[in-house]
Amino acid sequence: MADDKKMVDQITPMDEDFAKWYTDIVKKAELIEYTSVKGCMVIRPYGYAIWENIQRILDAEFKSLGHENVYMPMFITESLLNKEKDHVAGFAPEVAWVTHGGSEKLEERLCVRPTSETLFCEHFSNIVHSYRDLPKLYNQWVSVVRWEKTTRPFLRTREFLWQEGHTVHETAEEAVAETERMLHVYADFCENVLAMPVVRGRKTDSDKFAGAVATYALEALMHDGKALQAATSHYFGDGFSRAFGVEYTDKENKKRHPFQTSWGCTTRLIGAIIMTHGDDNGLVLPPAVAPVQVVVIPVAQHKPGVIEAATALADRLSAAGLRVKTDASENSAGWKFAEYEMKGVPLRIEIGPRDIEQNACVAVTRLDRKKTVLSLDGAEDAVKALLEEERGAMFARAKENMDRRTYDCRTTEEIKATLAEKGDGFIRAMWCGSPECEKKIKELTGVSSRCIPFEGEKIGDRCVCCGEHADTLLYFGNAY
Amino acid sequence: MADDKKMVDQITPMDEDFAKWYTDIVKKAELIEYTSVKGCMVIRPYGYAIWENIQRILDAEFKSLGHENVYMPMFITESLLNKEKDHVAGFAPEVAWVTHGGSEKLEERLCVRPTSETLFCEHFSNIVHSYRDLPKLYNQWVSVVRWEKTTRPFLRTREFLWQEGHTVHETAEEAVAETERMLHVYADFCENVLAMPVVRGRKTDSDKFAGAVATYALEALMHDGKALQAATSHYFGDGFSRAFGVEYTDKENKKRHPFQTSWGCTTRLIGAIIMTHGDDNGLVLPPAVAPVQVVVIPVAQHKPGVIEAATALADRLSAAGLRVKTDASENSAGWKFAEYEMKGVPLRIEIGPRDIEQNACVAVTRLDRKKTVLSLDGAEDAVKALLEEERGAMFARAKENMDRRTYDCRTTEEIKATLAEKGDGFIRAMWCGSPECEKKIKELTGVSSRCIPFEGEKIGDRCVCCGEHADTLLYFGNAY
Repeated sequence: MADDKKMVDQITPMDEDFAKWYTDIVKKAELIEYTSVKGCMVIRPYGYAIWENIQRILDAEFKSLGHENVYMPMFITESLLNKEKDHVAGFAPEVAWVTHGGSEKLEERLCVRPTSETLFCEHFSNIVHSYRDLPKLYNQWVSVVRWEKTTRPFLRTREFLWQEGHTVHETAEEAVAETERMLHVYADFCENVLAMPVVRGRKTDSDKFAGAVATYALEALMHDGKALQAATSHYFGDGFSRAFGVEYTDKENKKRHPFQTSWGCTTRLIGAIIMTHGDDNGLVLPPAVAPVQVVVIPVAQHKPGVIEAATALADRLSAAGLRVKTDASENSAGWKFAEYEMKGVPLRIEIGPRDIEQNACVAVTRLDRKKTVLSLDGAEDAVKALLEEERGAMFARAKENMDRRTYDCRTTEEIKATLAEKGDGFIRAMWCGSPECEKKIKELTGVSSRCIPFEGEKIGDRCVCCGEHADTLLYFGNAY
Repeated sequence: MADDKKMVDQITPMDEDFAKWYTDIVKKAELIEYTSVKGCMVIRPYGYAIWENIQRILDAEFKSLGHENVYMPMFITESLLNKEKDHVAGFAPEVAWVTHGGSEKLEERLCVRPTSETLFCEHFSNIVHSYRDLPKLYNQWVSVVRWEKTTRPFLRTREFLWQEGHTVHETAEEAVAETERMLHVYADFCENVLAMPVVRGRKTDSDKFAGAVATYALEALMHDGKALQAATSHYFGDGFSRAFGVEYTDKENKKRHPFQTSWGCTTRLIGAIIMTHGDDNGLVLPPAVAPVQVVVIPVAQHKPGVIEAATALADRLSAAGLRVKTDASENSAGWKFAEYEMKGVPLRIEIGPRDIEQNACVAVTRLDRKKTVLSLDGAEDAVKALLEEERGAMFARAKENMDRRTYDCRTTEEIKATLAEKGDGFIRAMWCGSPECEKKIKELTGVSSRCIPFEGEKIGDRCVCCGEHADTLLYFGNAY
């Protein structure tokens, strides 16, 4: 196991330096590479394959709900961006501006899309005329640019990949239902596919998307107790459609402004996977999005028939629809074990002469190195069951971390003391709803993120700040 | 058929005004919509679905050949772009420049990628060290920007979608083989999937990609006799790797510069599909990429059991893996026929009370409105066979058009006379290989595109221009 040790040692332990641990993983597992363009990164094949799996699963889900994919230009004219005042105020400070085409100065400068509400609205104003044209349920998979000061791979980069859904509806009720539906689509995806528990909630008014009536969001809790926003879904009312002149004729032949939503998730989900599931040996990938779900490692591979048996098993698993790799390279078994642990492959299968004799192989899970001897007969089903078990164990461990780090507090003093004693986590506290108290809580305790859970639960009836009557529970946290 | 007429009349006949015919189709078949960003367009769901089908088929083919997908930044620093002199000379005049991030002026301006050789080279210089790291076979699906003066939907837009493959190899031989392999991948895709015959060839030196040693290209011939470049594949030698400092240690422990290729195809393929197969009734889509392959239209749908029978048939065809739509709307049958003809749906199935009685339905092909009565038993296989037949008929018709418009010429006078008499087409002529003759032929005859076919055939041994000895056959044409 000397080789194993050597490999694992290259990753800084999480408890020693969490930020360094994270950076080590994204580099050494070959997810990204830096470039000469500050704040932008190369997503390498192993990282991009995770994103492709996320895309494939979400895209099929969106389509099954009636959404259609489109492609909008990557540029927005300054005058178009300026049409909705809250929106431009929110985004203008962080957009990249194109001022020249070739050697010529442009008459009007163009921003590289930070998000595409303005373009979708312009398009809707061209194609929506009658109630018969509604709803339009659109989505696009693109990259967007926001000129961030401080960047970190996947979590905050100047360019990132995402999908943005944009829908337009006859009534406010339909649009609100769509906003909520898509939040639950994301939540189910996070929990069932990524094995990542999330709090489903609503942002406070001070924290909404620029131009939204309401912003719903998912908050996940990372290994270090910090919160990460995993996806958002916005309800716009008819604010954008009024600003952009989107109108339709209803069944009574009256002109009306339709109601809109948008919703998105990004490559930051890969950062969330790393910080929810990873450990000091490297990545731990949810089976559904792992580029390689099973690695087959021949043991004593110089002995006759071993590589053939490993390959035959791998072929059978591939034929059963699994993503499988066989490593029959000259590297030591110890090196291979460490390498695929670092890469987060959910299941390792070892097969050597003695296993073959017994018509068996040994499966080892990534999360807890649990060993199971499997018969080669029906190995396909057994492997699928182990992967499903792995997903369940990953979710349970992440949920346990979230629950353990969720603290109920009654006063701002208690919040400060809890954060000081226990470190970061979710603080649950009652809030009267006033922006002043919200601001004061942030200032007094240093928390940055707030989220009102959907469930409507309560842990008291007095505001944690002013002590007045409070109906609203808030989750506070320090956010990525 | 009054409704039918009305619908079809909206499209300008091809012979009256080919450019207007083209624009009518892209708009009325709802492939694109214009935007306030000059030269950029919205690709609407029906257009984007064609691109998704192209992507899906090509992506699977690339992956089966060992290529991996990655994502590079959309920005290139000016200094990085400047590293290879031919490359920057070719692209700098047509790039969009980002000069500001938020309200701050950037220290160094960034161009929006017109193509990503420079970024891939920088990345290769970071990750390629030993012969063991080679080859790298990468691809990405992204959008790129070129600041064109005159734009037309799909054919020439300031932003367009494409894939760009970038590979790096130990030897020149391997890189040349990859360049040729990928050209044939594209050619087979064009011919077998898009039913579009192409000439496989090589560009003359004056017409190569900026920075390439050799550029291979596919030339297709449109309905109006103009040539369209459908895909390109470039061999770079070690020019880029020298300019960007990409080095590897070979088996003898010597430092060497590796050899590179790149290859790409774009959303312009959708323009090629329109102008190769379309007619005065609208689009004609190759079955493999048609968003809807079969439309089922209930006839006399108010009669009991008709809609049920249509839906049942559609469900069976969907279950067999076909993309099927049933239109049981209140619109007239005539309107529906015209609508789906305009949208290029390869096969229409009509099913009414009499058909149901006879356990049958009527299939009508888009290309030539050929009617076939199909038994409902085994309809799945019969429909698949008709779609395959349709593909064959589309290819044959396009090939016939290409052959009919290909002219062999012995003198520049003959070229001029042929173009004047017959209109645009492929002119085949022998060429001595001198850039002077190439230039003179262009000037004298007005042709814009040149391509040396792979096959190495000849139609004589004297240069069409200077009359000296000539070994090279050239295809000339007027290009989109």
